[in-house]
Amino acid sequence: MGRKLILMLCAAAVGCAIARTARAEGSPEAGDSVAIRDVGSFYVGGRVATVEGLPRTDITLVPGAPPLTIDPNGQFEVEQMYAQYIRLAEPKAKYPLLLWHGGGLTGATWESTPDGRSGWQMFFLRAGHDVYISDAVERGRSGWARFPQIFTSEPIFRTMREGWGLFRIGPADGWDPDPAKRRPFPDTQFPVAAYDQFTKESVPRWTTTDKPVMAAYDALVQKVCPCVVIVHSQGGYFGFNAALNAPDKIKALIAVEPSSTPEAGADASRIRGVPHLVVWGDHQQGIPFWTNARNKVTAWQGRIRETGGVADTLDLPAQGIRGNSHMLMMDANSDAIAERVQRWMGEQGLMR
Amino acid sequence: MGRKLILMLCAAAVGCAIARTARAEGSPEAGDSVAIRDVGSFYVGGRVATVEGLPRTDITLVPGAPPLTIDPNGQFEVEQMYAQYIRLAEPKAKYPLLLWHGGGLTGATWESTPDGRSGWQMFFLRAGHDVYISDAVERGRSGWARFPQIFTSEPIFRTMREGWGLFRIGPADGWDPDPAKRRPFPDTQFPVAAYDQFTKESVPRWTTTDKPVMAAYDALVQKVCPCVVIVHSQGGYFGFNAALNAPDKIKALIAVEPSSTPEAGADASRIRGVPHLVVWGDHQQGIPFWTNARNKVTAWQGRIRETGGVADTLDLPAQGIRGNSHMLMMDANSDAIAERVQRWMGEQGLMR
Repeated sequence: MGRKLILMLCAAAVGCAIARTARAEGSPEAGDSVAIRDVGSFYVGGRVATVEGLPRTDITLVPGAPPLTIDPNGQFEVEQMYAQYIRLAEPKAKYPLLLWHGGGLTGATWESTPDGRSGWQMFFLRAGHDVYISDAVERGRSGWARFPQIFTSEPIFRTMREGWGLFRIGPADGWDPDPAKRRPFPDTQFPVAAYDQFTKESVPRWTTTDKPVMAAYDALVQKVCPCVVIVHSQGGYFGFNAALNAPDKIKALIAVEPSSTPEAGADASRIRGVPHLVVWGDHQQGIPFWTNARNKVTAWQGRIRETGGVADTLDLPAQGIRGNSHMLMMDANSDAIAERVQRWMGEQGLMR
Repeated sequence: MGRKLILMLCAAAVGCAIARTARAEGSPEAGDSVAIRDVGSFYVGGRVATVEGLPRTDITLVPGAPPLTIDPNGQFEVEQMYAQYIRLAEPKAKYPLLLWHGGGLTGATWESTPDGRSGWQMFFLRAGHDVYISDAVERGRSGWARFPQIFTSEPIFRTMREGWGLFRIGPADGWDPDPAKRRPFPDTQFPVAAYDQFTKESVPRWTTTDKPVMAAYDALVQKVCPCVVIVHSQGGYFGFNAALNAPDKIKALIAVEPSSTPEAGADASRIRGVPHLVVWGDHQQGIPFWTNARNKVTAWQGRIRETGGVADTLDLPAQGIRGNSHMLMMDANSDAIAERVQRWMGEQGLMR
């Protein structure tokens, strides 16, 4: 049933208060259509790099075409970042919402879930936000540059096994190439039958590109913001720093399972006016990568609060919501978590 | 002024016929909002590949995190294809519209133009089509696989110079790294000042992946169609073959500047029921890559017509529309060309 119809029925009926409280103010309802003003994309940041001294080769670009002599030397645009937007006819949020993915992944993180449900992109469009989804430098539609000539190292490729443990679908030793033999956490919210489908979203990553990635995010903020930013995992590092670099532009930062923080010595007083929310899933215990990340992030939140800022935590297991993975925007209860994030944004005065 | 308002005024005014003929039936008007039912994405095709025998390495994933020992060996999903959809609340087209990009590029081709105007994605949404945009295997959000272990060759990177000539922005010898010194065709429709911005859309490509690319397109057709497909450049090869592979699923094929055709010996009678439209821009003369492609495509169209099929040509220069580049969906008159394509689809009975 559409939201409008519920409100119409409410206006004439006794069950009104119940129907309205069952759903947080401003939260969307699946199935409603959304009026959009514009869809598009653009590239920000980057620079021209020159490659010299490589040999020419003859190649055939398409079957049956005459061979082309390719001179691989010349100029290339590198280190740019792709961002796609969907803008609403009548946004209910004060600012556009930017979604920044994690390491080894792309903006696809925020679209549909691997088992085919609507993702956070559609949730926040329905909730009234203009939504911008970017692919970090080197990943997805942003493209990547020749190595070792421009990018200085080789990329790394995440195995299906590594994702299973690191993303906390199940214990690391519960991985098996055979889906029938895998051992997920008994209470996992991740759509385990779609795990292989999820790993199709993986893209190679470099560990030597943090500077250009950061520069492109800063350029995006300068172009699009004021805005609200939701980051995931590795995106935490870039999001926390983007807020420090442009505290006037970023009106709030929601860090979902951030894997890192700004460098030691960063001045938390700069972001006194930028409310932060950190969201944690389940099953972090005993995994040093995550317990370390969490300790660091908690310390950073403490420093923000010491300066008088807002640095809240949505600790899902502590609230009785068990079994969320690192990819909680894909978990079975992804919409319920988005609704809590949406409620927090409302409390921070970010909706009209 | 919104289209509805024009029609309302028309109903009561004398200038009605003029207002209605100034815009083809069913063609969209910039500025109108569009009601969408759903936005999302999915991956099709691909397989699990195994890598063995590589050494382990220690890496730091994010600044300050404890080092992780990475074992690069294991299973990977490879050769999958990403597709994103925007579905309308009330489509006016009978079938969804699939947009397939060209070589060394991604689905971004169809979004905004490099100078920031709305692209064909938004045009065809406004015209009433559900629109699916994919990134071919190896490109964009589809990701790419380790080489030479899985992909058997190295990728090639398109220089800014090569694109200038091959995409017919200007003569090949009119290229200069300094934008002020470049010599475009005097009548070019390409937004020349945004050429560097356009080259940010380039991604590496392989010349050894045609088979998995084709398999993934075939899988997309099986999942999403019946449909209409618009292809560009290298996408011509995959689109022509996809129609041969699933003539019951592809209801029409529009090939924009296709760079190749099916292999010699392909049976054109299979696609007797699939209307084809080929769109050509300007300045192909004297460039063997393009004159060869055009001759081959024209011959293929002839064979389709011999079997009783429809294989039309929209030859823009022959119609007095001069200066279009290979990237004509980005040219200054991109919407006017889209409108002609839209009109052809209407003539083929593809609208409701």
